[in-house]
Amino acid sequence: MSRTVYLNGQYLPESEAKVSIFDRGFLMADGVYEVTSVLDGRLIDFDGHAARLERSLKALDMASPVGRDELLEIHRELVRLNGIEEGMIYLQITRGAPGDRDFVFPDPAETPPTIVLFTQNKPGMADAPAARTGIRVITIDDLRWHRRDIKTVQLLYPSMGKMMAKAAGADDAWLVEDGKVTEGTSNNAYIVSGGRIITRELSHDILHGITRKAVLRFAREAQMEVEERAFSPEEAKSADEAFITSASTFVMPVVEIDGTPLGDGKPGPVARRLREIYLEESRAAAI
Amino acid sequence: MSRTVYLNGQYLPESEAKVSIFDRGFLMADGVYEVTSVLDGRLIDFDGHAARLERSLKALDMASPVGRDELLEIHRELVRLNGIEEGMIYLQITRGAPGDRDFVFPDPAETPPTIVLFTQNKPGMADAPAARTGIRVITIDDLRWHRRDIKTVQLLYPSMGKMMAKAAGADDAWLVEDGKVTEGTSNNAYIVSGGRIITRELSHDILHGITRKAVLRFAREAQMEVEERAFSPEEAKSADEAFITSASTFVMPVVEIDGTPLGDGKPGPVARRLREIYLEESRAAAI
Repeated sequence: MSRTVYLNGQYLPESEAKVSIFDRGFLMADGVYEVTSVLDGRLIDFDGHAARLERSLKALDMASPVGRDELLEIHRELVRLNGIEEGMIYLQITRGAPGDRDFVFPDPAETPPTIVLFTQNKPGMADAPAARTGIRVITIDDLRWHRRDIKTVQLLYPSMGKMMAKAAGADDAWLVEDGKVTEGTSNNAYIVSGGRIITRELSHDILHGITRKAVLRFAREAQMEVEERAFSPEEAKSADEAFITSASTFVMPVVEIDGTPLGDGKPGPVARRLREIYLEESRAAAI
Repeated sequence: MSRTVYLNGQYLPESEAKVSIFDRGFLMADGVYEVTSVLDGRLIDFDGHAARLERSLKALDMASPVGRDELLEIHRELVRLNGIEEGMIYLQITRGAPGDRDFVFPDPAETPPTIVLFTQNKPGMADAPAARTGIRVITIDDLRWHRRDIKTVQLLYPSMGKMMAKAAGADDAWLVEDGKVTEGTSNNAYIVSGGRIITRELSHDILHGITRKAVLRFAREAQMEVEERAFSPEEAKSADEAFITSASTFVMPVVEIDGTPLGDGKPGPVARRLREIYLEESRAAAI
């Protein structure tokens, strides 16, 4: 079945959703995005994603083409039109399509931003088999630009990282800079040592994960100890357990790093418990 | 007059040239580009650009959708159709538009690359007034990813850099990493001290400029001394002169760095002479 997607005010069949070759998203990666999950046909942490979107746009001197309420309405309409029970909604806003290519930003009065949203139907996403077996990661150099807190579409290196992981027989890659893990290719990274949850502190170096924020709050509410600091691949390999978080994987246990199994090589109790809490609380708060 | 552009085998009016929202160039900056200049209706250093394009594609595990001869034919046809005497031809190849968004590369057998070319008409480009007055640059931190030798469309930061320069009343920005200048936002950077031309050596840190290569060859042929090594902004500010090179600016004198005038604040003799030689030799070799 063909999806219905949203593009600049219109709901269209996906095959008709096209942008100009002069769109700055296409020519210069001048755009930002968000991915919001859907469970039980409702949106998970919509307001967190809407707030981060505003932050990304502001960092790039871009105005949002839609307010929070209209954005919510578009998300809900796409869920309805495409009959999504479990899945994701991808949203991208670019600086629009001026008539030509130029490094200088176009005048926003003459060039409106491009906004596109589409759904990804993922039945069974919350009950993903990978959550029961855990995933394996490799570590690779972090070669990305230095404003990873802005959620831009400059995703070539994360995509290359995923391919390096695949080539190594693993599921994902953790990025390493100055001897410390920054994050995963499209997720935040955590280890658990002596009962403490350790994850890198927020800065320009990592994405300010919406799922990260929620998970750390739930962990603290459950009296778990959280330490926000960087850790090395070596420390990670000797940790009791590890996991990642993202909007689409929720909390996903990591059972192997660079071929070294963690603990007994199975998903750890902290990751499993946090996944349970996250899914329960998020479903309850979904809109 | 509407331009005729080239998109995936077709010559189209520019307003009809559109790509799918699922194009990986649009969603993930998964694409490379080249800009070739046109003087006297002929292509400058076409084979240099074609060779670098192959190199960029190979670095990203992408196949070229067209061979060298077909690429040349497309360039020439666009020059003809759009009546370009002086200007540029922009070329971009992306990993194509699979049916959905995924960090994993699509199977190239199922997803052909996207190829787009368009012209930019710039009458008087070779006789640019800026070449007579020189340009002013500021220095900013180099926050780009670490494979600048691959000419990808991840141009958000260079674009931001150009805006920072504009806001500071300058023309362009030189990027600084670990205390040394890497290059300009879309050009290679040079200083001249004691008669020696100094420019950063080739590595993953900078673009392997096609114009850089030609200019250094011409400089050596003219018995000028060339030193390929990094220099600091401080060294640059106390240099006798400075300049940049790129396909579209050729050799462009720099007369001010961070508000500090170089020498007498006018284009220096080495930059002026190199521009002259470059234009003369390039016109003679154009195809």
